[in-house]
Amino acid sequence: MKIKQNSKIKQVEVAEEGAKNTRKKILIGSNGGSKNIIMRYFTIAPGGHSPKHSHNWEHLVKIESGKGIVVGKDDKKVEVSEGYSIFIEANEMHQFQNPFEENFEFICIIPNINKT
Amino acid sequence: MKIKQNSKIKQVEVAEEGAKNTRKKILIGSNGGSKNIIMRYFTIAPGGHSPKHSHNWEHLVKIESGKGIVVGKDDKKVEVSEGYSIFIEANEMHQFQNPFEENFEFICIIPNINKT
Repeated sequence: MKIKQNSKIKQVEVAEEGAKNTRKKILIGSNGGSKNIIMRYFTIAPGGHSPKHSHNWEHLVKIESGKGIVVGKDDKKVEVSEGYSIFIEANEMHQFQNPFEENFEFICIIPNINKT
Repeated sequence: MKIKQNSKIKQVEVAEEGAKNTRKKILIGSNGGSKNIIMRYFTIAPGGHSPKHSHNWEHLVKIESGKGIVVGKDDKKVEVSEGYSIFIEANEMHQFQNPFEENFEFICIIPNINKT
C-alpha cells in the first residue's frame, strides 16, 4: 500500500505541443508500483488548453474543480464543471479548454502504456 | 465520448458480506463503453466500513471528501482525508473504515475484470 498527500506531489508543466497553461501531477503511477493504470491530476489555468489530439488509449476523467470546455468529435463543445465524469474512447479526438477565470482541474486515468 | 453528471448516477448499497453503511456509484464502467478500467465512487457513512479482504486486482483511490481510516497489512491503520491518494496492490489485505461523524467519500479505480 502506498499513501500520498497530493499536495506534496511534484507538479510539472505539460510540454507536449499544443498544450498551454496546463500542469500535471502523477497521483498514482508506475514508479509507485501501479503497473496497469495511471491516475493523473491536471490543472488548466485560465486561457489554457490541452493538445487537441487522439491516441490509441482511453481517458476516464472526473472534474474536480472549476469549469471548462471539452471538445469532441466534429468540434462539438460541452461545458463541464465539478461533478461531471467523462469517458473518452481510444482514438477519439478531444481537447480540454479553460476559457473561464478560475483554474479548471480534473483527474484523468489512463491504462499504463508508458504514457504518463 | 460520454459525459455524465455524477449526481444523476444511481447509487446502490454495497451488499457484499463485511460491508456496512457503504454505498457505490459507477461513474464510468463497462456499460458506458469503458472496456479496460472502471471508476467507482464510494460513500461510507459514519460507523460504516468496506469489507476487509484481498483480491487479485489493484485499487487506485483518491479521497474526495471527509476522512476515514485505511487498514492495511498487519492491521496497520492510517487516517486519510481529502487530498490523499492510495495505491493498494493486488492481493493486499485492505479495508476502509469511517469512525468519524461525516461521510467518507472516495473514488476507487479498478481494472475491468467483471468486478464493479
